[in-house]
Amino acid sequence: MSSSVLRYLTENRERLLNKLNEFLAIPSVSTDSSHKKDIVSAAQFLHAYLQDIGFDKVEILETGGHPLVFAEYNQAGKDAPTVLFYGHYDVQPVDPIDEWKSAPFQPDIRNGRLYARGASDDKGQVFMHLAVFEAFMKTEGKIPLNVKVCIEGEEEIGSEHLNAFLENNKGLFAADFAVISDSGMIGNNQPTILYGLKGFTGIEITVNGPDHDLHSGMYGGAIRNPLMALAHILASMKDKDELVTVEGFYDDVEPLAAEERKLIEAVEGEDYVASTGAPETVSEAGYTAKEHTMARPTLEINGMYGGYQGEGTKTIIPASATAKITCRLVPGQDPEKIQELLEAHVKKVAPSGVTVTVKKEKLSARAYKVEPNHPLIQKAAESYTKAFGRETVYIRMGGSIPVVESFEALYHIPIVLLGFGTPEDRLHSPNESFPLDSFDKGMETLAYYWETFKNE
Amino acid sequence: MSSSVLRYLTENRERLLNKLNEFLAIPSVSTDSSHKKDIVSAAQFLHAYLQDIGFDKVEILETGGHPLVFAEYNQAGKDAPTVLFYGHYDVQPVDPIDEWKSAPFQPDIRNGRLYARGASDDKGQVFMHLAVFEAFMKTEGKIPLNVKVCIEGEEEIGSEHLNAFLENNKGLFAADFAVISDSGMIGNNQPTILYGLKGFTGIEITVNGPDHDLHSGMYGGAIRNPLMALAHILASMKDKDELVTVEGFYDDVEPLAAEERKLIEAVEGEDYVASTGAPETVSEAGYTAKEHTMARPTLEINGMYGGYQGEGTKTIIPASATAKITCRLVPGQDPEKIQELLEAHVKKVAPSGVTVTVKKEKLSARAYKVEPNHPLIQKAAESYTKAFGRETVYIRMGGSIPVVESFEALYHIPIVLLGFGTPEDRLHSPNESFPLDSFDKGMETLAYYWETFKNE
Repeated sequence: MSSSVLRYLTENRERLLNKLNEFLAIPSVSTDSSHKKDIVSAAQFLHAYLQDIGFDKVEILETGGHPLVFAEYNQAGKDAPTVLFYGHYDVQPVDPIDEWKSAPFQPDIRNGRLYARGASDDKGQVFMHLAVFEAFMKTEGKIPLNVKVCIEGEEEIGSEHLNAFLENNKGLFAADFAVISDSGMIGNNQPTILYGLKGFTGIEITVNGPDHDLHSGMYGGAIRNPLMALAHILASMKDKDELVTVEGFYDDVEPLAAEERKLIEAVEGEDYVASTGAPETVSEAGYTAKEHTMARPTLEINGMYGGYQGEGTKTIIPASATAKITCRLVPGQDPEKIQELLEAHVKKVAPSGVTVTVKKEKLSARAYKVEPNHPLIQKAAESYTKAFGRETVYIRMGGSIPVVESFEALYHIPIVLLGFGTPEDRLHSPNESFPLDSFDKGMETLAYYWETFKNE
Repeated sequence: MSSSVLRYLTENRERLLNKLNEFLAIPSVSTDSSHKKDIVSAAQFLHAYLQDIGFDKVEILETGGHPLVFAEYNQAGKDAPTVLFYGHYDVQPVDPIDEWKSAPFQPDIRNGRLYARGASDDKGQVFMHLAVFEAFMKTEGKIPLNVKVCIEGEEEIGSEHLNAFLENNKGLFAADFAVISDSGMIGNNQPTILYGLKGFTGIEITVNGPDHDLHSGMYGGAIRNPLMALAHILASMKDKDELVTVEGFYDDVEPLAAEERKLIEAVEGEDYVASTGAPETVSEAGYTAKEHTMARPTLEINGMYGGYQGEGTKTIIPASATAKITCRLVPGQDPEKIQELLEAHVKKVAPSGVTVTVKKEKLSARAYKVEPNHPLIQKAAESYTKAFGRETVYIRMGGSIPVVESFEALYHIPIVLLGFGTPEDRLHSPNESFPLDSFDKGMETLAYYWETFKNE
């Protein structure tokens, strides 16, 4: 009976929230090298917590990049199954900083939500798992199954060193199945199990023209403008029907089966206009917005810049222009091949009079899909439903979790994607937050789930 | 005889250069409101200098924007003609600051060039005129003609308040002709008289989508990306033949006459590839780069930004995207009409799913052309040739000097555009500089020119 576990979580709620706030207060931004020290602090926080809980073995492992926190609990005995819990302690950058209502690294509770960078993605959800392990140890003296913990610091920069590290330490992470909470529910209090994730890849395009900014009056008419050249290149990659016009982009895309379109149709989708404030939704011709986000590949410009951005006017032809592009991929698409296609397209359409460079981002991952009827997933769904009091739905999502692809490729084990975030969490944006309701019911869900592994 | 004047300029060269450096050291950036104090300091420097020279009346006049420095010298008597000298003491912003080899406001002499923001545009050339007036006063006790001085502080932001101020104070600036040194020579030591200037206008385009940055995985496929929308809008405004594709843009353009194409052909043009470092020149289909820059209208993107610009990757769909655009106009084109055409085009091509705003920049000017054979211009050409030892050429230029249009409209007087800059000056760019050779020969040219007004 996990009633004692649940009582422990309730009675210790305030202390646990304070401890989570300590974790959230560490600005562990992985993409910015100036935060290296904070990255290490976040890893040390987890190391200390896992030792307090009573894991048998806790280590901070060097990966060649940001360190990885590893822990092992094996007191459930040889017959008990072993779960590999994965999460990440690094967070996205916070800019534009002035749009935050409270400082991103000073956690603040407003209207039942905890506001902080990483509150939902992924520090908050990582902490919930550790808190539940603590509850089992403090109340029942043991956790119902053996546990391996793998919490990395490079998820937001594409888990650059994780894959090689897993390959070189395959035995260390061997388990019967994996559980990851780095995703969200399709709606508030709507238990949601992810059975599909998109893959991911990206490039950066740089257009160089003159070797210095030029007076637009004296040189306009003789020199190709890198900003206009970039606009032509970018506009040629996607049409107004949101179709990617890069040759070969859709070649390996697994078609969307009729049954699956029914399944997606059945899911009560997010009201994108309400949650984003955009004037209307747009999606790939022939597909609904739900289908496009869940099961069709996308190409997005994440950032673009060149020339004068200050107050007023500066009449120049700038020396260069840059755009950052990422694609979300579906089963069948190969990230490296997509990068090749993007580069070939850019080189093909690049106008004369400028030099165009394509940098292939290292981060990339294949898409992932699992069978929703697997017993381990069904158990999770039942625990989920029990805690939230609503039927669990099964969805695919546009987000990418590179480690899922790594686990799949290395261990061929079931991966349970058990996420407690909500559409209002504003992941990667100013004012990221996580509902305290999900914090409570999510921990309850995990307690029920581990409970099911007793006496097996 | 101006030999004494020339001797004075030679003997006082070092002192005059030091004084110019004081002027250049004032960061009078007009587009940035944080430099308001420096703007005033620059005006005060000129006020003090003009008083020292011995002008009869020197004033700093409030225009509603940055102040205007006015001075009057009338000791040449009623029969002598009056010249209106115009210049500006404001300068362009300095960014990207890290590309400057020496600090923009710490003048530095290297390889016979004076490096500083404003060295050529326009503080250096304004100072030359004042130094020559000083030389006449100190050696001959008088200047050969009556002089009115009008040095403004808003040229780099489109002389926003100057036109209204001139209209309201028409008598104050009334003169027989005007002289302006805010331009350059077509080549080093190549005496050049400008007989045509382009007009100018601009807009800023802002594309708004979601009300906050979105996770590109969770929302890619449902929400229009403002950066891609902006790329489509911009790409639709100019084709790869450098033809502006905005409907009506060329309607009022005065055709380029065969004789004028010959005249332009005769001018030894700038080696754009050598001076800009661009891979090659590009120009409007059917016109040479020289023709396009001198006598055909242009549209340039001066700046563009949106989304993530930092280190690494940030997988977002940004909330907004912005582009700054300016056009250079030729005789016949009306700046306000062009702004209307640009706005109509942007609204027409704007895709759904985003809100597009067009801000019309206040700064604008019509193009200008004058008869090269006017005696006042011929006198200037002869003085120019005498000082530099080479025949003077007559050209049109892509640059815009709004005040020329104002003087023309208000006074209908000949305007002598007597510029001493060179193609290597890097106006509006990092490492702006001005050759000391032009400093010396330019002042010599002015001395000869004023000399011709003696005993008239």
